[in-house]
Amino acid sequence: MKSHTEYLTLNLPARMAFLNITDKCEEAVRKSGVREGLMLCNAMHITASLFINDNETGLHEDYKKWLEGLAPFDASPQRYQHNRTGEDNADAHMKRQIMGREVVVAITRGKLDFGPWEQIFYGEFDGRRSKRVLIKVIGE
Amino acid sequence: MKSHTEYLTLNLPARMAFLNITDKCEEAVRKSGVREGLMLCNAMHITASLFINDNETGLHEDYKKWLEGLAPFDASPQRYQHNRTGEDNADAHMKRQIMGREVVVAITRGKLDFGPWEQIFYGEFDGRRSKRVLIKVIGE
Amino acid sequence: MKSHTEYLTLNLPARMAFLNITDKCEEAVRKSGVREGLMLCNAMHITASLFINDNETGLHEDYKKWLEGLAPFDASPQRYQHNRTGEDNADAHMKRQIMGREVVVAITRGKLDFGPWEQIFYGEFDGRRSKRVLIKVIGE
Repeated sequence: MKSHTEYLTLNLPARMAFLNITDKCEEAVRKSGVREGLMLCNAMHITASLFINDNETGLHEDYKKWLEGLAPFDASPQRYQHNRTGEDNADAHMKRQIMGREVVVAITRGKLDFGPWEQIFYGEFDGRRSKRVLIKVIGE
Repeated sequence: MKSHTEYLTLNLPARMAFLNITDKCEEAVRKSGVREGLMLCNAMHITASLFINDNETGLHEDYKKWLEGLAPFDASPQRYQHNRTGEDNADAHMKRQIMGREVVVAITRGKLDFGPWEQIFYGEFDGRRSKRVLIKVIGE
Repeated sequence: MKSHTEYLTLNLPARMAFLNITDKCEEAVRKSGVREGLMLCNAMHITASLFINDNETGLHEDYKKWLEGLAPFDASPQRYQHNRTGEDNADAHMKRQIMGREVVVAITRGKLDFGPWEQIFYGEFDGRRSKRVLIKVIGE
């Protein structure tokens, strides 16, 4: 069994933003030499997501508006108890649960085994801090 | 390490529908010959989900109503920017995020290591097109 | 390839509750002897979740309130068809979809490869029954 580990450092200043990291994942799979196996890609921070969806900026704006409706930003300590700890990002912990922490993708004949529109995105829900993403490849 | 790859083609005409594919996954595990390992099963399309829950039609109707409340279908370009691109399915991209893209299931002694009620479902949120599901088995 | 399987039995009486099981997962990884690989940890029941987030009780209270808003408990058979089957927990099947069934974590140099705040939680949305969690480790 082969394995390969990589860490990306990302810094998205906006409170909510999405970044396409599909090429970074493809590169990690190439470097791993794995032909058949699995790739795990996850946020190492708990106010960020990894998800697979469409590379369409209109949809990304729709996601932001929709997530803001489901879990509104509110820095005050009234709505969210978490924000009594000096934090202001309780909403980001919720948005991340909706969008997910990780993606697991099959590797077939040396490539990410994707449907026609699948792209991997990092989702930032808090901003202001540099964050890390883990890519782990295992297989043969 | 052994690996096995299978693709299912599904065609659910209704805009929102669920299909139990547990037996297809069990068959893929049998064919793989893997006794200890992992099975990944994912939608290859971005308006569809794979999820594990109860095989109970009342609950499935509840899911449909609930998802429609959280992310209502609206073909007009006013509510969703994505629908200014000629698409009408922005809501389906949201429903899919709630229900998830993929499931990862343990294989123990040659079988999917399931609790008493776990069943694997394909969730269609867009309809009208034939779509593919990937099953990847790795292990030994 | 090495593999290791463990089952935890949990009994959280409250209808909604979270339990930190990070140490149980770390112990399973140690026992497995795996240095590079993946750990899958999933609920074996369909009204429970495994998720990774912050070990902060204020946030957990926020999650409970937020989930109750998105999928309210209602034992009556009017709101949820599932509750016409003699069950009263349709809401728990929805809360579990928001929070997720499983987590997949990389193992690097013999340890769960975690960011600074990542902790693994079992989420109970139904209570009253003893439930099981599966930990599967594969790698080398």
